[in-house]
Amino acid sequence: MERIEHRACFGGWQDVYRHRSAVLGCDMSFAIYLPPQAQDGPVPVLYWLSGLTCSEQNFITKAGAQRYAAEHGIAIVCPDTSPRGDGVADADGYDLGKGAGFYVNATQAPWAAHYRMFDYVADELPALVEAQFPVSDARAISGHSMGGHGALVLALSKPGRYRSVSAFAPIVAPSLVPWGQKAFAAYLGDDRAAWAQYDASALITAAVEKLPVLIDQGEADEFLEVELQPWRLKDAADAAGHPVYLRMQPGYDHSYYFIASFIGEHIAHHAAALKA
Amino acid sequence: MERIEHRACFGGWQDVYRHRSAVLGCDMSFAIYLPPQAQDGPVPVLYWLSGLTCSEQNFITKAGAQRYAAEHGIAIVCPDTSPRGDGVADADGYDLGKGAGFYVNATQAPWAAHYRMFDYVADELPALVEAQFPVSDARAISGHSMGGHGALVLALSKPGRYRSVSAFAPIVAPSLVPWGQKAFAAYLGDDRAAWAQYDASALITAAVEKLPVLIDQGEADEFLEVELQPWRLKDAADAAGHPVYLRMQPGYDHSYYFIASFIGEHIAHHAAALKA
Repeated sequence: MERIEHRACFGGWQDVYRHRSAVLGCDMSFAIYLPPQAQDGPVPVLYWLSGLTCSEQNFITKAGAQRYAAEHGIAIVCPDTSPRGDGVADADGYDLGKGAGFYVNATQAPWAAHYRMFDYVADELPALVEAQFPVSDARAISGHSMGGHGALVLALSKPGRYRSVSAFAPIVAPSLVPWGQKAFAAYLGDDRAAWAQYDASALITAAVEKLPVLIDQGEADEFLEVELQPWRLKDAADAAGHPVYLRMQPGYDHSYYFIASFIGEHIAHHAAALKA
Repeated sequence: MERIEHRACFGGWQDVYRHRSAVLGCDMSFAIYLPPQAQDGPVPVLYWLSGLTCSEQNFITKAGAQRYAAEHGIAIVCPDTSPRGDGVADADGYDLGKGAGFYVNATQAPWAAHYRMFDYVADELPALVEAQFPVSDARAISGHSMGGHGALVLALSKPGRYRSVSAFAPIVAPSLVPWGQKAFAAYLGDDRAAWAQYDASALITAAVEKLPVLIDQGEADEFLEVELQPWRLKDAADAAGHPVYLRMQPGYDHSYYFIASFIGEHIAHHAAALKA
């Protein structure tokens, strides 16, 4: 593992590392913010999953989250959004292939060889982070858009793994919307049962651990009606008695200006659970 | 004037406009953040000047300043860093020509036709902003690196124009360092008297208005020793009895992670003066 960025930020350090991922079969970069409190002992960790086209860089440069992480004494780990490198399959367009891993374990050629972001985020990356950095095993997870989908699916399908979950403008029903259908057909094939294990609105009907879900969604989001449809998760959760706090935010779009405006409240939400 | 971006942010709006600049003889973009308080009447304005290679985008996407502007009820206006367009002279390299206007009025060919960023920032842009937006004539100014130089020079040479001034890692003595010498020789020619009117360490020895100057400077800044040398301003200010608060920040570099870490304190500094 090699440190490739090291920048003082709000009294802590915003670092970026490269490492060889055995799960993905390629070199990967991830970002980690270590707050000032990490100098005195292990701190809890928030995993942040970014959306389509992003790398580990977008959140750390644009969200302004470090201020809140420093206030609450929480580390933030940001993986990339897909496997990378010359030997990794790719596709034209921004919504499949590199930058669009969708946090699933692909079963179909040519994707299955490297596209295993679910296992990478759920297992390999936390094991590495918890072995190498002053962090505890108190984990939270959040994300944006495709990454909001990833955060919800990971929290719902890995009971006990995370103490809290939230999302910004998530894809909540990928099986039913164009982005998700394109990606799932490519990565998982035609078997709809395989799709359901990565569909938050399906998973939430039978989740054994009813972790409260905080979601912020901009009402002026250009993807709201076609790709996001957060009411699908809310309806399924209500029917299952699973607490989902869906906050529609008037005027806000799909951008990082939206994320920046509410990330402080999300980090406070996670901090309350991580320190409980 | 045309609005080309409009994004909800911390209860206000982060907008970007394009307009025809008579002073620069080209189309220009600038960003304006209007806090929630602007809905109820005019608010004070902080002008932010960015550094080499930047446009109006860098500060608004990376500094996280909107949170503090919303808290204090202050608008933030960010101009571009040079004239732009096909008809505008340029040079190889990042430190001369487009993206490197240095906030001077050029007198030498081929630059004099368009490179008049001093007049644009001092006069044309504030007149436009104050005519078109719900802002008052209470103005503050700040900036980073080349833009810190610009903020200092504008505040020192336009008494009464700004109520407060600050800078991050500014070029304080451009006449004496490589970046400044290259730019001033091109834009202003060989006349050192012309250089002095754009050199903060020269101007501060005779400033009629002793506006307190807040400066943050990272100790790990890669440009500290050769290009920035903030002690030159501090020494000249001390000799002149001009208050300069130079804060050396251990560990911090020249990046936006540094700016983000301290922009809240700078905005509080400006808010105190703007609302006094």
